[in-house]
Amino acid sequence: MNHNGGLVPIYSLGLDFGTESVRALVVDIHTGAVAAQAEAAYRHGVIDRVLPVPGGPAALPADYALQHPGDWLTEMSEACRRAIADAGVAPEAVVGIGVDFTSCTMLPVLNDGTPLCLAGRFSAMPLAWPRLWKHHGAKAQTDRINQIARQRGESWLDRYGGAIGLEWFFPKVLEALENAPAAYHAAELWLEAGDWLVWQLTSGPFPNCAPGDLVRSTCQAGYKAMWNTATGYPSSEYFGAVHPDLANVVETRMAGRLDSPGRKAGGLSAASAKLLGLLPGTPVSVAIIDAHAGVPGSGVAEPDALVMVMGTSSCHMMNSRLEKMVPGVAGVVDGGILPGFFGYETGQAAVGDAFAWVAKTLGQSHAELTSSASALPPGAGGVMALDWLNGCRTPLMNGRLSGAYIGLTLSTSPAQLYRAMLEATVFGLKWIVDTLIEAGVPVRRFVASGGLPGKSPLLMQIVADVLGQPIELAASDQSVALGAAILGCLAAGPAATGHQTHQDAIRAMARTRDDLVYRPDAETHGKYAAICALYRQLGRSDGPVAEAMRRLREGA
Amino acid sequence: MNHNGGLVPIYSLGLDFGTESVRALVVDIHTGAVAAQAEAAYRHGVIDRVLPVPGGPAALPADYALQHPGDWLTEMSEACRRAIADAGVAPEAVVGIGVDFTSCTMLPVLNDGTPLCLAGRFSAMPLAWPRLWKHHGAKAQTDRINQIARQRGESWLDRYGGAIGLEWFFPKVLEALENAPAAYHAAELWLEAGDWLVWQLTSGPFPNCAPGDLVRSTCQAGYKAMWNTATGYPSSEYFGAVHPDLANVVETRMAGRLDSPGRKAGGLSAASAKLLGLLPGTPVSVAIIDAHAGVPGSGVAEPDALVMVMGTSSCHMMNSRLEKMVPGVAGVVDGGILPGFFGYETGQAAVGDAFAWVAKTLGQSHAELTSSASALPPGAGGVMALDWLNGCRTPLMNGRLSGAYIGLTLSTSPAQLYRAMLEATVFGLKWIVDTLIEAGVPVRRFVASGGLPGKSPLLMQIVADVLGQPIELAASDQSVALGAAILGCLAAGPAATGHQTHQDAIRAMARTRDDLVYRPDAETHGKYAAICALYRQLGRSDGPVAEAMRRLREGA
Repeated sequence: MNHNGGLVPIYSLGLDFGTESVRALVVDIHTGAVAAQAEAAYRHGVIDRVLPVPGGPAALPADYALQHPGDWLTEMSEACRRAIADAGVAPEAVVGIGVDFTSCTMLPVLNDGTPLCLAGRFSAMPLAWPRLWKHHGAKAQTDRINQIARQRGESWLDRYGGAIGLEWFFPKVLEALENAPAAYHAAELWLEAGDWLVWQLTSGPFPNCAPGDLVRSTCQAGYKAMWNTATGYPSSEYFGAVHPDLANVVETRMAGRLDSPGRKAGGLSAASAKLLGLLPGTPVSVAIIDAHAGVPGSGVAEPDALVMVMGTSSCHMMNSRLEKMVPGVAGVVDGGILPGFFGYETGQAAVGDAFAWVAKTLGQSHAELTSSASALPPGAGGVMALDWLNGCRTPLMNGRLSGAYIGLTLSTSPAQLYRAMLEATVFGLKWIVDTLIEAGVPVRRFVASGGLPGKSPLLMQIVADVLGQPIELAASDQSVALGAAILGCLAAGPAATGHQTHQDAIRAMARTRDDLVYRPDAETHGKYAAICALYRQLGRSDGPVAEAMRRLREGA
Repeated sequence: MNHNGGLVPIYSLGLDFGTESVRALVVDIHTGAVAAQAEAAYRHGVIDRVLPVPGGPAALPADYALQHPGDWLTEMSEACRRAIADAGVAPEAVVGIGVDFTSCTMLPVLNDGTPLCLAGRFSAMPLAWPRLWKHHGAKAQTDRINQIARQRGESWLDRYGGAIGLEWFFPKVLEALENAPAAYHAAELWLEAGDWLVWQLTSGPFPNCAPGDLVRSTCQAGYKAMWNTATGYPSSEYFGAVHPDLANVVETRMAGRLDSPGRKAGGLSAASAKLLGLLPGTPVSVAIIDAHAGVPGSGVAEPDALVMVMGTSSCHMMNSRLEKMVPGVAGVVDGGILPGFFGYETGQAAVGDAFAWVAKTLGQSHAELTSSASALPPGAGGVMALDWLNGCRTPLMNGRLSGAYIGLTLSTSPAQLYRAMLEATVFGLKWIVDTLIEAGVPVRRFVASGGLPGKSPLLMQIVADVLGQPIELAASDQSVALGAAILGCLAAGPAATGHQTHQDAIRAMARTRDDLVYRPDAETHGKYAAICALYRQLGRSDGPVAEAMRRLREGA
């Protein structure tokens, strides 16, 4: 008898679309064991210098970041076929497919699914191409969208802590309308790339997609396109006040049924089944944002558990039964992460990136610095950092803030500077947790995933000590792709999988490590309380430090 | 005819007692030409580990810094004889001797001039030895002295910006009274080392000094011992409130006539003449603090010219016709630098030291950093530093402040960090200048001396641009020792030298460079105004940054 009780192994496929590559993960739905995985890098990579076609501008602006939609299909096919082959799994043993994608990565398309950039005369126009999440061309449009929303007192603004972000959906739509009106008007649909990809799987690939098959994710729509269950997208009056030609954007360019990740968007089309080497009709889940897939992928099935995806930046997410508008929290979305819960998303814009900056600036390795920083007491011997080297996401939502060090003396060591930066990111995390709790959203459990936790035990101990809470670790180092596979399993449904509830599926396929939990030291926690209070005081958004940072960004 | 009009060359001897060595400079009093110079290192150096005699403690406390008074005489003799020989100057051609000394370096002595540490049974007692300016053993005593002065509303406190310093005279006296009462009571005089040295020259050496020959310098007394022309030392009531046994300290242990540097303390005694290889009766000037000798030594004869001695730390000094109490200015002393003027002393506790910390921390050389920092615009591309890595001397007089960086981003470069620190020290200098001007003390001219100006043209251009003033440079790279020689010339008097006034002597012997003046760029000066205002706002002593620094020093 095998360890899942003698069941015949069946599998779900997770497709994880990152910034540079797509990863395919073949996962046993009863055990979560990874049968095989494969990764394929996009052959055009991130397009930020010149378009991969003739006739475009000689150089793209510095803040542009585009992708080639053909890469997504080609490389997906390769990664999937390789993983299935490596796993030695028969196509009929794959019962579901889940897709996560970077967001807001979006593109203009025709009603048959064809990306505008591949439709002849638009190929030389940069804004006809998919714009990657980190495309920063829509600064002026973001300001306008926020300004009009505030003027009109738009109630949806509260769901986003009072301001929407530069990288979001409608700033990018407005950017096209203002700077490439021909592309804007030629587009029959504006779509998140994850939704486009799921549509290709269930109805295409293009040019054979049927508009009626299009399903948009409540995750992407809720977190990036100002949509919510109760009131839908913002009103025509609002969009018209932003720009007259935008008044009918929802009616004319946002078609598609909305549904939650984990719900079935459709079955694999015949042509896409061929592309992947799987069976037609295989259920495909509604798409999810990559980071958000890390919640189920970390083995978190219950609400009130904060999943901290810690990497170059951090994204901290949580499901809750309660819907609260929380100042500074970038999104609370009904069904945004899993059906049946309100999903909260918060983030820190520089974490691993901040540590890397310190190490590079000091000309020392992380290993050297970690070793010497570990010997220091809480508080780094009197040095404090503010960690906003890429602005502050949650809770201040201010990209113009910057980093700082205070408490420097002639004997301050590189180890102190490094430890102070580690501590600062954790003080920032505590501020986020406190913000949720103070708004009435309980946070009862903490699970870390992403690349950093495995790399820095020192950081994880600081997290435990500052929060005064045990910190669990996601068992999988592929929690995002695993989360996508779990959604594929949910889309397949109980009859195919035997999992009666979402919780059953998540518990079977993902878990936290039982061999390592970071536990807080009570005395150290007490010491951090005063230091943390000082961080909060220095970091006040109406204080002179924040004011100085704003003025320094403006050239003082 | 030679270039001074055919006069027979005559010379003055400058004796410059530094922390590690004594330098002798033989200077032509008509031209300022240095005929020869010689330096001799103290054989016992700075005594900070163990006393150079048996019977003392196994190890000195960490904040102790002592010297051996025998070294001063032995090494002075060697340096002087070597310089005179190298110059090929006859003893009778040396018409005066000037002495500058570190301060407050002080010692307990007997009435015959014998240092207590060389008087038998006290030799094993650390506090019987000369304590160097940077001896930091008197923290508690400094607090007590300031606290009682504030409680009693002592008017002399205003001359020192409201607080006296850890390194000053009476904190060190009180340290001995409290921690080595036997040494305190055995001492018949407490003396600045500069005054002791001049006494040795005119009356000794010990044990042959006559108490009636003792002349104390108004410079050392005024800047370091709370003395002033109008009211003398603090009252017996005040001292008694500090400590009952201190009530009669002035009457019993502070004998000696007070006079200004540049006035004749006496003629060289026969025994000391032998020690130096010069003629008995050669006039010796009243002593001066080393930094203050840099004022005449920089060629500054007139009032209202700020002499900026820039090195590891900076000391900015000025003569003025006006006496104003300036908050945060560490001393205004009648005749403190030259007779007939009120001398102002201000300082910055870390300048070259701060740049060295940045370079060491970043693991790069000053040359590399200067080269890349020179290419940056004013404001270092949005990075601001606070330069108080060793506390803030003028105007905040707060040793518990610390350094800071604000405006850091993921793309902040080492060059930005370096340039921001250069700029911060200059913003600090501008704050000092503004503080003087706002108090009604005019500042009309700026002369830089010390080690830094020659090393960093970038720094000097920033000084010119931030102040919006031309910055002249002292021509001599030995302006302190040259200043001592000028005082020797003044002590010799007009009959011997032909110089009718102090100004005549200074102009003849010292000057600023005529081949290099740093001139401000008007546009750059305008840009710095806003950045400078931001520095002042961040640096407010009642602001949250200063408050955070204080709390970080206390362990938050």
